[in-house]
Amino acid sequence: VATLRIHHPEELWTAIRTLAVRGAPAIGVAAAYGMVLAARDLPPDSQSAQLITALHAAGDYLKSSRPTAVNLEWAVNRMRQTANAHRGIGVRQLQIRLLDEAHAIHAEDVAMCLAIGRHGVSFMRPGIGVLTHCNAGALATSDHGTALAIFYEAQRRAIPFQVFADETRPLLQGARLTAWELAASGIDVTLICDSMAGLVMQQKKVGLVIVGADRIAANGDTANKIGTYSVAQLAAAHKIPFIVAAPASTFDLALATGAAIPIEERPGEEITQVPGPVPHRTAPAGIQTYNPAFDVTPAALITALVTDRGIISPVNEAGIRARITA
Amino acid sequence: VATLRIHHPEELWTAIRTLAVRGAPAIGVAAAYGMVLAARDLPPDSQSAQLITALHAAGDYLKSSRPTAVNLEWAVNRMRQTANAHRGIGVRQLQIRLLDEAHAIHAEDVAMCLAIGRHGVSFMRPGIGVLTHCNAGALATSDHGTALAIFYEAQRRAIPFQVFADETRPLLQGARLTAWELAASGIDVTLICDSMAGLVMQQKKVGLVIVGADRIAANGDTANKIGTYSVAQLAAAHKIPFIVAAPASTFDLALATGAAIPIEERPGEEITQVPGPVPHRTAPAGIQTYNPAFDVTPAALITALVTDRGIISPVNEAGIRARITA
Repeated sequence: VATLRIHHPEELWTAIRTLAVRGAPAIGVAAAYGMVLAARDLPPDSQSAQLITALHAAGDYLKSSRPTAVNLEWAVNRMRQTANAHRGIGVRQLQIRLLDEAHAIHAEDVAMCLAIGRHGVSFMRPGIGVLTHCNAGALATSDHGTALAIFYEAQRRAIPFQVFADETRPLLQGARLTAWELAASGIDVTLICDSMAGLVMQQKKVGLVIVGADRIAANGDTANKIGTYSVAQLAAAHKIPFIVAAPASTFDLALATGAAIPIEERPGEEITQVPGPVPHRTAPAGIQTYNPAFDVTPAALITALVTDRGIISPVNEAGIRARITA
Repeated sequence: VATLRIHHPEELWTAIRTLAVRGAPAIGVAAAYGMVLAARDLPPDSQSAQLITALHAAGDYLKSSRPTAVNLEWAVNRMRQTANAHRGIGVRQLQIRLLDEAHAIHAEDVAMCLAIGRHGVSFMRPGIGVLTHCNAGALATSDHGTALAIFYEAQRRAIPFQVFADETRPLLQGARLTAWELAASGIDVTLICDSMAGLVMQQKKVGLVIVGADRIAANGDTANKIGTYSVAQLAAAHKIPFIVAAPASTFDLALATGAAIPIEERPGEEITQVPGPVPHRTAPAGIQTYNPAFDVTPAALITALVTDRGIISPVNEAGIRARITA
């Protein structure tokens, strides 16, 4: 485990872009602190108006680091609104207020993880096999994670279960983060390649799928790590419940459907080589690639959304608006 | 491209087990020559009976190198039958006869590739995007391949098309073989991760799937590289034709369904590291893994079987027996 010290918004932008900070909730919390740094990086004798202007610019800049996860946008906007609401208190007090707000976002993230775990544990029948994709755990949030919070809650209640973790190419978050995190916590986890998800369902080794989310539209369409859509289709074909675990801050009710969610495309080198201290080439040089970092799973394939505010099932706009704007 | 010189059946066994020789048809041809080597490795002054006994032992031994592909078994049995049928001609003549038979199997493999290409090209509508999984090309057969033979035939006829090649974890046959082979032949190929197959179908970049096979049961259930079953389910969900291209020697009419096809499980290190001259670790040490090398796609998900003897569609036992035992 490494600690990255970040002093300026530019360093945070790079940390998010290069995935040193990753996972939608963790990016949101980091962005809130990034706004604190931007509010601190002012010329001497600046006024509140200059701080507000600086936050506006820093917010747009930080949002540009990764387009798909909405938590980034959400945290930036919340910090801007805080500054606007308190612009009369003076620069020094405003800086302190912004730091308090970032701390609050961080603390809420911790509480949200626990709440998701408590709500979602109802899906964990004793002896169940659960498939997860990518990493929606302690390494993606401030605390226990979203999808993985449900596993930690089940473990706390001594419910026996087994996890199958997709390795999650290209960047192997499942192999490098989820498998490590769950094994370190004493949870029975088996690493498989993404291409094995269908087989473990066919063999009935898996009876439930739980994943996280990067952005959820008003109708429930969900953007998450590339490969999630394939897993959702496979779950539907095997009549296995497919659960998305995410906090209220992951919902983007301004978007009617998932069609409007921006999908980040990343460099082809992520496919032609495998990540590591020294990247390892796996395909011939000059090969064409296509590397979308996310996909969108239609609401119709999602059995339930597990949020910090409760379970939404069936997944539709009325159910979402009732829970999320309430 | 490297040439491996093999002098004894033991070397061939290792070459097949370690995938230096891979692809069901190529393994069959190699096994035929392996039987020639076994027939040559006799003590001086051996009689035909000893040759037959030696071939029996060598055949069982070679079959143990990989359990799933039936072409290996098929080639071994054909060489044994040849020896039995000609046991009266003396050891020296019998050795020559066996070499002729191996040459014949090799030549038939070349002709079979071309025939599969000619039959399968009917699926190649101009402008189509085609997904393939693993490698069923020149690097899996003696010549143009099975699935990929269809691409080469379409190219020869100047039909425009685009291929998406799944990288095919864990051993990356798609990245290392298919993408290389198609790009070297001037075919428009784009490498994707296995987890992206659903998305390219959802985005309508792909309108056809073509894969090879390692063993096909009498009812059409098809064993092929792990991940094929997931792709078949995804194709069905998107109403995209799913085509299996394989020669008659890949059919195992003694098996009623795919449930009886033996599925090879391989070492977990294939998942916790990525292959290469120096293997590259991608997951923490000591992580549990599950590494089936193949899966079985039910006949109901297969639109057509393209064989060297013509197209079988719909896929059912009557259609298969009419083409394959005829």
